[in-house]
Amino acid sequence: MHGAGRARIVIVGCGFGGLFAARALERAAADVLVIDRNNYHLFQPLLYQVASAALAPADIAQPIRTILRPQKNARVMLAEVQRVDLASRSLDTAVGRVPYDYLILAPGAVDEYFGHEEWRRFAPGMKEVEEATFIRSRLLRSFEIAELEADQNERAAHLTFIIVGAGPTGVELAGAIKELAVDVIPRDFRVADTRRARVVLIEAGTRVLPAFHADSSARALGQLRTLGVEVRLGEPVTQVLADGVEVRGERLRSYNVIWTAGVRAAPLTATLGVPLGPGGRVRVLPDCSIAGHREAFVIGDAAYLVDAASGRPVPGVSQGALQMGRYVARLIEAELNGAPSARVAAFHYHDKGSMATVGKSRAVVEIGRARFGGLLAWLAWMALHITVLIGFRNRLAVLFSWLYSYVFFRRGSRLITRVAPPEPAAPAPTERAS
Amino acid sequence: MHGAGRARIVIVGCGFGGLFAARALERAAADVLVIDRNNYHLFQPLLYQVASAALAPADIAQPIRTILRPQKNARVMLAEVQRVDLASRSLDTAVGRVPYDYLILAPGAVDEYFGHEEWRRFAPGMKEVEEATFIRSRLLRSFEIAELEADQNERAAHLTFIIVGAGPTGVELAGAIKELAVDVIPRDFRVADTRRARVVLIEAGTRVLPAFHADSSARALGQLRTLGVEVRLGEPVTQVLADGVEVRGERLRSYNVIWTAGVRAAPLTATLGVPLGPGGRVRVLPDCSIAGHREAFVIGDAAYLVDAASGRPVPGVSQGALQMGRYVARLIEAELNGAPSARVAAFHYHDKGSMATVGKSRAVVEIGRARFGGLLAWLAWMALHITVLIGFRNRLAVLFSWLYSYVFFRRGSRLITRVAPPEPAAPAPTERAS
Repeated sequence: MHGAGRARIVIVGCGFGGLFAARALERAAADVLVIDRNNYHLFQPLLYQVASAALAPADIAQPIRTILRPQKNARVMLAEVQRVDLASRSLDTAVGRVPYDYLILAPGAVDEYFGHEEWRRFAPGMKEVEEATFIRSRLLRSFEIAELEADQNERAAHLTFIIVGAGPTGVELAGAIKELAVDVIPRDFRVADTRRARVVLIEAGTRVLPAFHADSSARALGQLRTLGVEVRLGEPVTQVLADGVEVRGERLRSYNVIWTAGVRAAPLTATLGVPLGPGGRVRVLPDCSIAGHREAFVIGDAAYLVDAASGRPVPGVSQGALQMGRYVARLIEAELNGAPSARVAAFHYHDKGSMATVGKSRAVVEIGRARFGGLLAWLAWMALHITVLIGFRNRLAVLFSWLYSYVFFRRGSRLITRVAPPEPAAPAPTERAS
Repeated sequence: MHGAGRARIVIVGCGFGGLFAARALERAAADVLVIDRNNYHLFQPLLYQVASAALAPADIAQPIRTILRPQKNARVMLAEVQRVDLASRSLDTAVGRVPYDYLILAPGAVDEYFGHEEWRRFAPGMKEVEEATFIRSRLLRSFEIAELEADQNERAAHLTFIIVGAGPTGVELAGAIKELAVDVIPRDFRVADTRRARVVLIEAGTRVLPAFHADSSARALGQLRTLGVEVRLGEPVTQVLADGVEVRGERLRSYNVIWTAGVRAAPLTATLGVPLGPGGRVRVLPDCSIAGHREAFVIGDAAYLVDAASGRPVPGVSQGALQMGRYVARLIEAELNGAPSARVAAFHYHDKGSMATVGKSRAVVEIGRARFGGLLAWLAWMALHITVLIGFRNRLAVLFSWLYSYVFFRRGSRLITRVAPPEPAAPAPTERAS
């Protein structure tokens, strides 16, 4: 143990997993250090609402320091973690080496381009605030260009929005963009008929929302088609270019391609030097620790753990991350209090249900064996998201923005700002070295 | 006249001048085209609140299309105007040539670096949303670095904020940054004492708020010093570098220098080929038109007009721009209705007063011969700004953000996002050619 004998717990990443771990350690007799490369916790499930101009980034992001201000044993560090050295129990960051007694790695996920990292430039994903504002600006600019463009084909390409991947993010984004084009902005334009904008949702698999029950997939598909979204199932995208995609040899022209086709663990996991599971995720023991390193844990999207009770991997959703975060925090605190038997109870994921919204007043919800859709599902989705949103101000501000959009059919954050397109991600340090 | 005989009125720039001209033309039997390089009208007087993390960009910007949606005779074009050809009555834009019958030029102002355009990189101004978010991110990042920095000098340089120029923007920004450091964020940091942050306001002239009455200048100076802002008067900045400024041979270290020292007309005025007045502004006739071009008007910050009644130039403030906008709109409409005698009444500026706020609950106000300060002035400032803010949603959202900050001593939009530093502005086309 370092310093005055207090254990030093380092948490890398302040998404749902890292944040809930930090909060659950509030009463631990330890120094907690939270490291993140952003100064805010991002409510990522609503990032698609920034991309579709409904919410401003500040509505869904809260400074980590503000959230942890009352927690006396917690400190916050703005830094990018470059490498983890399990042997010496330390991290390398751009601002120096950080030792730890316990490590909770919660670096999250990045978009997976399946070996085509060069597609990121044309088809950014939905992981970062900067990506969302870039997508928003590009999308709004396309409507502006369509208003001026005389060439029919060019205009059509600007009014075609392609979303690759029909998981919850893809489904929600497709619905939101279609709604923007059909309900929110048509009267703002004099020449272009934005209601004729095509929103195409392309999925390699056989159904939308593949992680949901088949009934919900069918229901969401119906809602998407009612809204006017073109859904193409069983069609893998084979090429992404500046002006569109290729699907089964067919060329679809579009200046707005968005990638929600898959994720992999943050590249930091590759620096651990341990065997990785599917999608670069770290295969952890039933207590979320790394084999041979009782003091180092991986949680959330970066962890691969088959739940013994269900026989299925813990899903890469916010509930999985925050439950793991709380579990590991309690385990460490128990151990610090001299109760090593805490390790006996393996992590168990409690599936509290899933939901996805399809435009305004439509959604699908699964809670246990109950599955439903329609307005009731949408209200449930709304209530949950507002309740979970962290920070008093954000709850009110988001509720206000939503009510406003609902009542006035407007969008609150329709700014085209000059944002650079995302760069292809650099390979992780160890991948580069090999 | 073009087309079906309806006059085509083109408005370049949708700041206060352009926007109020467009709205005042609502009933004119003409086609009104508003061209701007942004898709939003920006409430520029509050941009300093974005830079100081109190408001989000969407709180003070509203899409032009949304504002003009109900105005049937108005169209909107997102484009940068490159050149005005007065002889052929047309404009060149990146998306083609635009003819006009009447032209209202309202391109606004840019920051004036007095021949040191290279200073812009280190000392951005307060004109654009992107500049404000860059300043905000850089400023918040400096507090983060100060928290980690072991070197005392480096830490001090990160906790020193220099504002060059003590006009209203400089005064308001200095107050807001000091308040952020003293009242809002201290408890968020464990190591750095943000209350010891230095905010230095440097002015080449002999008093702050030089356009105000000397009493108000003295009052504002007192308020700034009470707040803890270091005000240095009569000290021109002679050098701006990446890590500070030089004033009278003295080097002041700082990683946060902000430029509010002066403005000049947008470079578009240089393409007109007419004699320019002080600061590149176009010397217009008493009816705001360009000599020899009864159909072309310049209004707002880009115009230079000595008011015959007062003998003083119309000031480059929002009131001046919007009054000129309304005046020119009425003049054109009268002429379209066959009343050319409208030209007889020269433009006259009605000084409705001036105000500047110094942090929370302090301000100076001048209305006619009345001058006052303190909380009453601040409430007057608040009421005016909310009333003038365009758009229902913005009024409520901004009021909400302010009340929240006021009650909870927090700031609503403290996000560090990755924004590129501003590039030195390119010279205007004709300047380049010569």
